[in-house]
Amino acid sequence: MSVGSGAILKDGKVQVTFWPEGERVRVPLEATLLDAAKIAGVDLASSCGGDGLCGKCRVIVKQGNVTAQPTSLLSREEIRRGYVLACLTKVVGDVEVEIPPESRAEAAQILIDVDAQRFRALHPVGGEIEVRAAPLIRKLYLDLPRPSLDDSLSDQSRLFREIRRQRPAPIMQLGLKVLRTLPKLLRDADWKVTVTLGWRGGTLEVLQVEPGNASGRNLGVAVDVGTSTVVAHLLDLDTTERMDAEAVYNSQRAWGDEVTRRIVHAGTPGGLDELQKAVVGNINGLISALVQRNNIALGDIAAVLCAGNTTMTHLLLGLDPTSIRKTPYIPTSAASPPVRAVEVGIQINPRGLLYTIPSIGGWVGGDVTAGIFAVGLRRSKKVQMLIDIGTNGEIAVGNCEWTISCSASAGPAFEGSGVKHGMKAMHGAIERVEITPEGAVHYRTVGNGRPRGICGSGLIDLIAELYKVGFIDRSGHLAPGKTERVRERDGMLEFVLAPASRSETGQDIVITQADLSNLLSAKAAIYAGTEVLARAIGLDFREVERVYIAGGFGNYLDLEKALAIGLIPDLPLEKIRFAGNTSILGADLGLLSEDAWQELHAIAEAVTYYDLINYPNYYDEFLAARFLPHTDLSRFKSLKRSQEVEACI
Amino acid sequence: MSVGSGAILKDGKVQVTFWPEGERVRVPLEATLLDAAKIAGVDLASSCGGDGLCGKCRVIVKQGNVTAQPTSLLSREEIRRGYVLACLTKVVGDVEVEIPPESRAEAAQILIDVDAQRFRALHPVGGEIEVRAAPLIRKLYLDLPRPSLDDSLSDQSRLFREIRRQRPAPIMQLGLKVLRTLPKLLRDADWKVTVTLGWRGGTLEVLQVEPGNASGRNLGVAVDVGTSTVVAHLLDLDTTERMDAEAVYNSQRAWGDEVTRRIVHAGTPGGLDELQKAVVGNINGLISALVQRNNIALGDIAAVLCAGNTTMTHLLLGLDPTSIRKTPYIPTSAASPPVRAVEVGIQINPRGLLYTIPSIGGWVGGDVTAGIFAVGLRRSKKVQMLIDIGTNGEIAVGNCEWTISCSASAGPAFEGSGVKHGMKAMHGAIERVEITPEGAVHYRTVGNGRPRGICGSGLIDLIAELYKVGFIDRSGHLAPGKTERVRERDGMLEFVLAPASRSETGQDIVITQADLSNLLSAKAAIYAGTEVLARAIGLDFREVERVYIAGGFGNYLDLEKALAIGLIPDLPLEKIRFAGNTSILGADLGLLSEDAWQELHAIAEAVTYYDLINYPNYYDEFLAARFLPHTDLSRFKSLKRSQEVEACI
Repeated sequence: MSVGSGAILKDGKVQVTFWPEGERVRVPLEATLLDAAKIAGVDLASSCGGDGLCGKCRVIVKQGNVTAQPTSLLSREEIRRGYVLACLTKVVGDVEVEIPPESRAEAAQILIDVDAQRFRALHPVGGEIEVRAAPLIRKLYLDLPRPSLDDSLSDQSRLFREIRRQRPAPIMQLGLKVLRTLPKLLRDADWKVTVTLGWRGGTLEVLQVEPGNASGRNLGVAVDVGTSTVVAHLLDLDTTERMDAEAVYNSQRAWGDEVTRRIVHAGTPGGLDELQKAVVGNINGLISALVQRNNIALGDIAAVLCAGNTTMTHLLLGLDPTSIRKTPYIPTSAASPPVRAVEVGIQINPRGLLYTIPSIGGWVGGDVTAGIFAVGLRRSKKVQMLIDIGTNGEIAVGNCEWTISCSASAGPAFEGSGVKHGMKAMHGAIERVEITPEGAVHYRTVGNGRPRGICGSGLIDLIAELYKVGFIDRSGHLAPGKTERVRERDGMLEFVLAPASRSETGQDIVITQADLSNLLSAKAAIYAGTEVLARAIGLDFREVERVYIAGGFGNYLDLEKALAIGLIPDLPLEKIRFAGNTSILGADLGLLSEDAWQELHAIAEAVTYYDLINYPNYYDEFLAARFLPHTDLSRFKSLKRSQEVEACI
Repeated sequence: MSVGSGAILKDGKVQVTFWPEGERVRVPLEATLLDAAKIAGVDLASSCGGDGLCGKCRVIVKQGNVTAQPTSLLSREEIRRGYVLACLTKVVGDVEVEIPPESRAEAAQILIDVDAQRFRALHPVGGEIEVRAAPLIRKLYLDLPRPSLDDSLSDQSRLFREIRRQRPAPIMQLGLKVLRTLPKLLRDADWKVTVTLGWRGGTLEVLQVEPGNASGRNLGVAVDVGTSTVVAHLLDLDTTERMDAEAVYNSQRAWGDEVTRRIVHAGTPGGLDELQKAVVGNINGLISALVQRNNIALGDIAAVLCAGNTTMTHLLLGLDPTSIRKTPYIPTSAASPPVRAVEVGIQINPRGLLYTIPSIGGWVGGDVTAGIFAVGLRRSKKVQMLIDIGTNGEIAVGNCEWTISCSASAGPAFEGSGVKHGMKAMHGAIERVEITPEGAVHYRTVGNGRPRGICGSGLIDLIAELYKVGFIDRSGHLAPGKTERVRERDGMLEFVLAPASRSETGQDIVITQADLSNLLSAKAAIYAGTEVLARAIGLDFREVERVYIAGGFGNYLDLEKALAIGLIPDLPLEKIRFAGNTSILGADLGLLSEDAWQELHAIAEAVTYYDLINYPNYYDEFLAARFLPHTDLSRFKSLKRSQEVEACI
């Protein structure tokens, strides 16, 4: 394809202009438009990392010379209107490009998991699990005894002695930078100082000494470093209050939605550094927003504690994740030591520490360790289960005596990726759906505005409703002819959820047959994981006292519908709880309680990692689960009953 | 004074040229010649730090404009020949200056304490004290079990597990920089690697991981950071062999010979930094020389362990020493944590550690801790005494149950400072002296060359001999008329040790009445310290089983003569041992044995610091000891006897 004409500059570079911003960059001849967008710093959606598979990076070439590879992800009408996929399109002259709203990698605010507010009950103030409030970082105000000929300890020993009077600390550390400022500071402050103490690998470090009583400003940031979303909580470590929260898309998505794609990129020259900088930039952005909004100083934040899957933690710390991907799936570090936050580029107090929650093993990372802790699974005498539905699906089952966990490669469909109009739970996302047998669609959006797409909870609702009214069959295939909303476009069936006239984007919001296939694969991977894990240990699901569903589903998750589509094992509804984002809850608690921090490490050590690859029939189980609710209906007896009952009414 | 003429450059700066090097610098108008020499990097002796008191910075103005303050430290003849004191002379135009040989702050090699070789017996191979050879830094060659699905520990945990199989290590640390290189390194090296481990504040740190078996190159450097001299030993930490040694003057001497003067300078803007850089430069220079001569790599040195007095340790680490000088004499740190050597500018392996031996308190520093350990005082059931004659004199007395120590402000006279022709034990220094009753002088110089000056052991001999033959009286006053060698110059008596015709410098080598006065003060301060310390604890010197004399006396110390002048308490000669430089011996052992390192810390904790200022009559004791051997001859009964015996022969 060639559109218009453009001059090639003498240095072999050409100019690309992105509209509506009017952002101009000069890029080498034959660069792709996706590369040009990265260079320009223009947000452009891309789930597959530039392989022409996801169809998200749609842009409109207004003027100039490009060559584009053919793709089935654009309709004839779209191609006519100038649409190309940025990743498949190379510039061969100066180009002017428009980025339509739906192709924005939104920097807009993601809905913070408000349901998680319920989980304040987890906080030390009481509730499901109780931990002692004893933050990892503490500020102690000290009025030191003045030195005399009879008490002529050094400044350092005097400080240590007083700290030890207030806290047990077998091994104490103090950096040279702090020591250098100590004598003048102590004397100028008339021996009244506030020390900031942080646990560091079994030792207690004096991170900072401030004059006078500065003990009232002891803040920390807990971060859930998700594959698609990064969420941060600002915590008052003394009062245990969660002051504020903020979330952003993980900028690493530019290199692919899936963890494996980022591991591959990390193996290319400079790749690890790019990925590290991307997520550190996100965290700094979140902290910066929290700091500004709450009118606090960066220096008052002396710790960041991150929960993430094993790869996310590696990329954050700049550790090579390559071996995680290859058998026998070995991480560089499962329990990385706390490091100075500034060493990875995180901007808080220059002496502040970065903690990462230890991984359980292989693909089961610190986010799951956090989740297991947060729901109290390891404190329960009865068997409980945690299903964390994120970009991967992780499952843990056990009790206080034994726990086993695995990672099911569910893919990010329930996070809105790999789904044509999928999106995170943010303004304009359809989060609840009801469909009448007549084909009338009722939905609710986050923020109650016009719909822009559909998020995870909406997708679960949608599948359950489509199945209930018979617009899809048990294998998830759309049935043409039953409603006008099922139609064919570019050779594929799709269901129209909201017409262009009602949507925010001016496009029909649809779910395609390919989307449904992806979603069924995702739910099958998760269900098969629970099944295989139970079989591996000879567990009958009836023995499970409680199932916690975790994930960034925003406001809402209809557990009944999750059960109806066979996402989770068939158990009485009262046994199932939606737990919200348990990763960040565990991170919060780790920061607020040194006991919790110890317990997180004990969990990472104690929980058995089960690799699904070990189970010979995992793929068979997966295929059997790709039906609604499952090929084997005997596994969903209660569901069958309730549907029969419904049919009777 | 104004000599010749010179042009002032337009920028208000003038040019100073130092001969014989021909080194030219431009300095502001009114700068002193001493400042100009510092800027030019020309070595110029200065003991008093530029106050016109020591008379060491004598230079000859050959041409140009200067203004000089009057001084009594130059003879009329010298002034006639163009001599000025560089510190009292300001430039007011371009100047050409000659630095005579005697004014050189010699960078030439200082005699390494070869007597200390005897103290190899202290090494773990056996001898006076035995310690287990277990270096602070260890290299372990590991052939790691390959990861598998059944053994899927992370790289870090795999490494830690294998290290723990070979060494107990409750808390292990690993820096992010090492962790980042780990996965590739382990796999490229086929899981055969060598780890460098270092103890760090009760934790064991993996400092470095190298491919293959690199366990044969495990070197360390022990340093005695003396006020006047810095001595370094290169040690093979695996074989415990002392490979080589090197010494240099402490460049901080440019700011004064005495510790107090440097503390004052450290309190001026930029002063601490200058002093820190000066000594770090010395240490780097020593290491560089050791590395080149022994054809080793800097990277093979993973630790430097320094022994120094409290102030020297502060200046090395860049810690403010101001409070050490003022009552109640509080150091910033008495036991500084090990730090990355590069953090203070010491150039060894970039991950290498700098250890400093902990101080006992106040002015009694890590050099004395090292000495107490090296002579085995804290292991003895019987009472022993250590007298360390350095720039200060430090005394410790005790046994395995109790030990007390103090610092006597002896000043650096026995190190050759404050003595007109005093010098360190280096080539050309007179180290032994005999004087016949007829006034014939026999001496021996280090290296047997022509004399350039006189070092500590020579000064002790000289006083004892002058007293023996009656050329000085009990108060140290030269008796004119008994020999032609006693003469008057510029209103002061002096004794001619070697005439100009025999000396290397072309000047008479003399000892002046002022020198003798300084020396008697130094010996009195030390003796009074021993006396006061003994009284403070009600100790009779006869209970002392052994006295160790330590100090950088080079090849030789005549203990009988040290006794004769009353430098040390009157004890049978067989109870007295010359122990050489015990500071660096303790440093050697600390580096070679983690048990020794523990014991050094235990000593610093256990030994009581006694401030002489606490003792009401210290000054009286000092004055009483300013006679030969002492005012109270009953304290030197054995000596009296032996002199009587001698007289009979």
